[in-house]
Amino acid sequence: MKHKADFARTASKPVSLLAEQLHLPAAIIRQSALHNNIRWMQQFADAANVALAPHGKTTMTESIFKQQLAAGAWGLTVATAYQARVAARAGAKRIIIANQLVGKANMEVVAELLAQGTELYCCVDNADNAASLAGFFNSKQLNLPCLVELGTPAGRCGLREIEQCLSLANCIHQLQGLHLAGVEFYEGVAKDEASVRLWIQQARQLCLQLLQSNIETKTALLTGAGSVWYDVVADELINVQAETGIQVVLRPGCYVSHDHQLYAAAQQQVQQRSKLARQVPGDLQPALEVAAYIQSLPEPGLAVLGLGKRDIAFDAGMPQVLKIYRDGRQLPYDLSQCESKKIMDQHTYWYYPAELQLKVGDLALLGSSHPCLTFDKWRTIWLVDDEYQLLEAMDTYF
Amino acid sequence: MKHKADFARTASKPVSLLAEQLHLPAAIIRQSALHNNIRWMQQFADAANVALAPHGKTTMTESIFKQQLAAGAWGLTVATAYQARVAARAGAKRIIIANQLVGKANMEVVAELLAQGTELYCCVDNADNAASLAGFFNSKQLNLPCLVELGTPAGRCGLREIEQCLSLANCIHQLQGLHLAGVEFYEGVAKDEASVRLWIQQARQLCLQLLQSNIETKTALLTGAGSVWYDVVADELINVQAETGIQVVLRPGCYVSHDHQLYAAAQQQVQQRSKLARQVPGDLQPALEVAAYIQSLPEPGLAVLGLGKRDIAFDAGMPQVLKIYRDGRQLPYDLSQCESKKIMDQHTYWYYPAELQLKVGDLALLGSSHPCLTFDKWRTIWLVDDEYQLLEAMDTYF
Repeated sequence: MKHKADFARTASKPVSLLAEQLHLPAAIIRQSALHNNIRWMQQFADAANVALAPHGKTTMTESIFKQQLAAGAWGLTVATAYQARVAARAGAKRIIIANQLVGKANMEVVAELLAQGTELYCCVDNADNAASLAGFFNSKQLNLPCLVELGTPAGRCGLREIEQCLSLANCIHQLQGLHLAGVEFYEGVAKDEASVRLWIQQARQLCLQLLQSNIETKTALLTGAGSVWYDVVADELINVQAETGIQVVLRPGCYVSHDHQLYAAAQQQVQQRSKLARQVPGDLQPALEVAAYIQSLPEPGLAVLGLGKRDIAFDAGMPQVLKIYRDGRQLPYDLSQCESKKIMDQHTYWYYPAELQLKVGDLALLGSSHPCLTFDKWRTIWLVDDEYQLLEAMDTYF
Repeated sequence: MKHKADFARTASKPVSLLAEQLHLPAAIIRQSALHNNIRWMQQFADAANVALAPHGKTTMTESIFKQQLAAGAWGLTVATAYQARVAARAGAKRIIIANQLVGKANMEVVAELLAQGTELYCCVDNADNAASLAGFFNSKQLNLPCLVELGTPAGRCGLREIEQCLSLANCIHQLQGLHLAGVEFYEGVAKDEASVRLWIQQARQLCLQLLQSNIETKTALLTGAGSVWYDVVADELINVQAETGIQVVLRPGCYVSHDHQLYAAAQQQVQQRSKLARQVPGDLQPALEVAAYIQSLPEPGLAVLGLGKRDIAFDAGMPQVLKIYRDGRQLPYDLSQCESKKIMDQHTYWYYPAELQLKVGDLALLGSSHPCLTFDKWRTIWLVDDEYQLLEAMDTYF
């Protein structure tokens, strides 16, 4: 059965969002901002002497993966085995699965990728899991590169203590079918900068200990960083590669679309905190928007917008209307006093000063946060130019 | 590119969830509960002398639409023009779009469906929208059946006053290209039963007034009801069809999967409130579950589950682990003291009594609420038997 994107994908003439030629709601990415963000983060990583493996789980969009790789990314990061397959299909030669690998069907996928020559790394934080992986991959005469995950108390995955990590590393080292390849952490769950720095220092120390203790880490990886603390990770690890040969890999994901709320605020902190970030020309720009019609104007000052929880992220603040268009032209209204107050499955209650002259059918463009949860609601994201002409139907693979 | 469901869809042997033959996380529907719910609600509607047009937006699953129609549904309800096309493809001859129709691309879809002979109704609550629709459909020599939407103060869409509705009805009646076809309301945003009853009484009164005032409503529709107050709507409107000829149509959606939290509680209220519901044999059963592995056991009493905001609804309470399996067998643990406390994109923090012997790789089945937001996260939902053997890959069309 045809999907709603198909008619526009196959259109012979240019298709315009503003001319109501798309079914709304629809998610769009502004190409200029996307290109900017891909360039900006790659330049940051280059300046920091670290490799970049953008976290693909944010977008799961093959077209964006290809652009990130073409811009110089070392590889891609993913959250699951299925996502690894998508990353490989997009051309990634190096893939980090930033999670333990669990379940036979998932292991089969990774075995296929390893057999094809993909340089693929998984995290391990559990001896039972290590034994299970070893049994599986050894039976296939494959070696799975493993990163020991260092966590933090009350955090997410990962062993809490260095000693536990060293013990697990020894266990991995001794198992046929596994290859000890370094250390992974995800500092995004830490409470403040001091905690992040301490965590990274511990991870570096752990990696150095592994390197000294005759464990085969000459091609060792040390990897961490989401889109909030990546500058701190870079700052702590900037000399590691030159001094030790350990490959440092940053894995931010949300930077690529950026956003209008959570990551906009986080990036302001990055710019204040990081001299390195300030040296990179320009800055990240929000690239992702969702377009929807004003669906109903049932009371003065209340517009019901035709988009909801199924269309746009609502987990880090309510979606905000950025601009309103009528008949292809932007309405010259100040929207700073407007506010989305309630979101349902397919509707959003948006309150505005009643003196604004709005109409049912006016087209609103909204920004939101956090971006992962907008991306995963769409099978197709429209790449647009700055006039909102469609350039490409970008399929997602969630 | 192949999707993750494809390998299992084309498997030559039976595929079992419990034997780790699926990529997890995965959403499943238990066939026995699905069949039960479809039968139960149809029997309720039959007993109440009202027609049933299940709201398809909940599942957007063609296979489920077909089963609802085969069980006797009068038609299907949807939220958007695109959803209407999916409903028509599933075989619905009567479709209610329970929203205003806005935007040229959306109108084009509806025009196609009308031209094909689909009996399709849209809501209207705005004279500008009526004029816009009239211009469009008249130019195509089509007549769009319109339902005047009666809202409630501080509610969602729909005119707040009966007088406004009568005025809009007159406007619609006079416009070429539109056909006044009745009254629509959605009582799900009301604050209590008394408000719901008052609202329905007003809607009935409005419909009767339209019938008396020479407006062509001999084939009139009066339609409302979500999955929380459908018994009250039925109770208020049970005699309307026999007495007036007005076709009453209920539109619950979530009943079809039911759930473990919000709608489980709502249905308890229905059973207490409604003699009619108690007369229907059996009751609704939760049919929708999401399967995920225990991904990490980093601290005593904390399991990190391999599913998150992208896999399961989290807007009406945290997902709950219902059962845990290891090597295909259910672990005999009492999980009543366990609790999911935090959910991230791809992970859930689940706390359990540390004396339970869990392992990384144990398979958890979770229930959640509300179901619409679990459905829309999946392109394929697996229909399973009571032993979790896969019966069908049901594609969704969000």
